[in-house]
Amino acid sequence: MEKMRIAIDMDDVMADTSEAIVQIYNEAFGTLHSKNDFLTDLRWADHHENYQKVRHQLFEPGFFRNIPVMEGAQEVVKALHDRYELFVVSAAMEFPNSLKDKYDWLEEHFPYIHWKNIVFCGDKSIVRAHVIIDDHEKNLIDFEGRAMMFNAMHNLEIEGYERVMNWQEVGERLL
Amino acid sequence: MEKMRIAIDMDDVMADTSEAIVQIYNEAFGTLHSKNDFLTDLRWADHHENYQKVRHQLFEPGFFRNIPVMEGAQEVVKALHDRYELFVVSAAMEFPNSLKDKYDWLEEHFPYIHWKNIVFCGDKSIVRAHVIIDDHEKNLIDFEGRAMMFNAMHNLEIEGYERVMNWQEVGERLL
Repeated sequence: MEKMRIAIDMDDVMADTSEAIVQIYNEAFGTLHSKNDFLTDLRWADHHENYQKVRHQLFEPGFFRNIPVMEGAQEVVKALHDRYELFVVSAAMEFPNSLKDKYDWLEEHFPYIHWKNIVFCGDKSIVRAHVIIDDHEKNLIDFEGRAMMFNAMHNLEIEGYERVMNWQEVGERLL
Repeated sequence: MEKMRIAIDMDDVMADTSEAIVQIYNEAFGTLHSKNDFLTDLRWADHHENYQKVRHQLFEPGFFRNIPVMEGAQEVVKALHDRYELFVVSAAMEFPNSLKDKYDWLEEHFPYIHWKNIVFCGDKSIVRAHVIIDDHEKNLIDFEGRAMMFNAMHNLEIEGYERVMNWQEVGERLL
């Protein structure tokens, strides 16, 4: 690795997957929540039991094809891509029907990312990089480089990591 | 990585992709070759131009779903899996329609390999492992651990690597 290599997660980092999950939750239970509610007043953990009842929808073809792009991601990822060696690393393997959907989603929203720089895996301990940006502690805890935790409704209470609140902040720290 | 970690390629290592490619070649050009011809008397490089005319078939859904298992792979991969930390690492990303096919193929022929231990990527320099078994020099050349070149009709003339002729030999060296 000559250039600094950055591994960027998709769900809840490049893609606003939590927003899409809150929407299927709303549809199932007749609620009117937004992701922002769970970043401020409400605790997503309190809704764990109900979420398990709709989680099967994540395994269906199409779910990951229509996730909104995370606010600010397109601009900052492009700038990181121009400066560093950037890999998209998604633990997609748990959702076999998401594989092509995620590939197509990247091609639509981040068309300059070459297929050589996309990794779909299960366990991210396989990844060699200098920096990782991810929302899940399991992907950060054993990482040997700089581990940045992207703020998400399910990680608010986790401490001990370099937390970034949004893409603007990622840009400020890495560009 | 506590246990020794082995990264194993799919095409032309776990899967006999060359045999499938020779078959689509035969169908297109009315020849009666087998992969073995290109391991002995014939040179696959001499057929490069014609191969380019049928290579588009590798991009179609289904091609990678029906590849035969490489002779001896099932027995030795199971034994390696029981002893080491085994990851399947395929540079599948060049063929987006192969992603689900390759997942399903692994589930059928190697059902004990957990989805956490499957990686679909483009550039294998992202992989952290102690041993890699692969047929392509580009995946071995910069690998920092033990790089084993699995003998294939397109790598016969490449020197400078620890070459393994078949799965029996992999077993003898690693088990």
